[in-house]
Amino acid sequence: MSFVALDWGTTSLRGALLAEDGRVLEERSAPRGILHLDGASFAEVFEAFTLDWMAVPGRRCLIAGMAGSRQGWVEAPYCACPCGAEDIAQQVVPVVPGRIDMVPGLVDHQSGVPDVMRGEETQILGAMRLTGLREGLFVLPGTHNKWARMADGRVTGFRTFMTGEFYALLSQQSILARTLQADAPLVRQAFLDGVDRARRADSPGLLHLAFGMRALSLFDRLAPAAAASYLSGLLIGDELRAQPLQPGVPVVLVGSPTLTERYALALDSVGVPARLLDAQATWAGAHALWRARQAVG
Amino acid sequence: MSFVALDWGTTSLRGALLAEDGRVLEERSAPRGILHLDGASFAEVFEAFTLDWMAVPGRRCLIAGMAGSRQGWVEAPYCACPCGAEDIAQQVVPVVPGRIDMVPGLVDHQSGVPDVMRGEETQILGAMRLTGLREGLFVLPGTHNKWARMADGRVTGFRTFMTGEFYALLSQQSILARTLQADAPLVRQAFLDGVDRARRADSPGLLHLAFGMRALSLFDRLAPAAAASYLSGLLIGDELRAQPLQPGVPVVLVGSPTLTERYALALDSVGVPARLLDAQATWAGAHALWRARQAVG
Repeated sequence: MSFVALDWGTTSLRGALLAEDGRVLEERSAPRGILHLDGASFAEVFEAFTLDWMAVPGRRCLIAGMAGSRQGWVEAPYCACPCGAEDIAQQVVPVVPGRIDMVPGLVDHQSGVPDVMRGEETQILGAMRLTGLREGLFVLPGTHNKWARMADGRVTGFRTFMTGEFYALLSQQSILARTLQADAPLVRQAFLDGVDRARRADSPGLLHLAFGMRALSLFDRLAPAAAASYLSGLLIGDELRAQPLQPGVPVVLVGSPTLTERYALALDSVGVPARLLDAQATWAGAHALWRARQAVG
Repeated sequence: MSFVALDWGTTSLRGALLAEDGRVLEERSAPRGILHLDGASFAEVFEAFTLDWMAVPGRRCLIAGMAGSRQGWVEAPYCACPCGAEDIAQQVVPVVPGRIDMVPGLVDHQSGVPDVMRGEETQILGAMRLTGLREGLFVLPGTHNKWARMADGRVTGFRTFMTGEFYALLSQQSILARTLQADAPLVRQAFLDGVDRARRADSPGLLHLAFGMRALSLFDRLAPAAAASYLSGLLIGDELRAQPLQPGVPVVLVGSPTLTERYALALDSVGVPARLLDAQATWAGAHALWRARQAVG
């Protein structure tokens, strides 16, 4: 039987009607993230968004994302790593029993400081399905980028990097904003220079490297059109420094092509191939959870 | 003969009347940094600020800081490291010949990416004079923190860290702002936890560690009153990671006591003693340059 999947995040709400076999039958989105309900209740936004889809008797819906957080519709406690589709499916929380279920996020408690994700777990499950890979590194670039380690089809652990948010702050609010043309297209060499400086094991870190951008500009060694690419390279290079990358072993990238192509370029510069997927991975993941949910009852 | 020294920075203007032997006879300051001239010219602000001091026939003035930058009164090109008081004194630039001189900033070209300072060179010379130390690490905490390496009385190289600016951005503009009470007093243990996590050689870096602050808050393991201290510790710890610190070898800290005491606490946690100086070091440095200027003619 076909079902509805929602990815209900902080800023936007995406949905799909999926066939029993996982094919996407219909898809839609709205700027109705959990911080943008404009006074309506979660139930009201849900009804308006899924009205025709959910009008079919017996049809069910699976929701992933921040709608399951403490600030969301119904809190779905985090599922602890290591975990796979079955573990996650077993811990979905009913919003309307027999009709709407909330997918839990993941927590990694293994490093002393906890780390959390919500919504990305579904994309990771979809990326596994779409690539056929059941181990390795899966990366979901964005405001709060996730690097997940997979083994035997389960997320064994993950780390969040505030790369997108740091980029926005530094390029728009810091002293670097003056020397940077934010809307310039990617300048490949400047980007790779940034990656190379930041990814080294003896890197002095972003606090220093970011200032170097300003100093390079002072001496006319970095044009405003290239500066944004250099900064982006520094941030992504700093992320790479912390990853267990192995030359020749592919990394899976899931997200908007603008971002995943950048990461692929950075990874290529250190001999690591990448497989790129877009947000459609969400629906493959929702289907994997749907199947696992049926299997666990 | 007595002389006038100015530290003319971006946001403020500080001045002192110094005796031939370096004693501070008078001191004053105004919120008239080079970005806050309010339509007046540099000459006009200078005259108003130093009127009585400069009315004495033959009296001279030495200016350090951003007033010597491209956006300042008269550009004084950077003096290249390694350099000491004599090198800097030889490269002062006359603003009004025989009356007003501009101290050059320093540039370190030795690491591939240039690094620059303006004003801090004078504080470093003063700190050498006041401590009697002519080698080691000299640190000037602030918005753009400088770590200078000294040998044989000269600055052999230095690195800038945007610690103060990152702290302001993250604590006020980022997602972390919600979980942080910015005006809370220092919580020693939270600060040292942050230092310890970030200073390790295998640190995953600030992009990840900063997000950990949010995750700790989510699980009620970091109170808002302690979160600002933890973030401050992460940033300072990340700086320490990049420094050639040696247990037992003192580091000289120059700046506001609020900041230098924090750095001293962080350094103490890794067995490094500190000597703390405040902004008075500027006047000792100006005196050192005055003497060196007389020696070089």
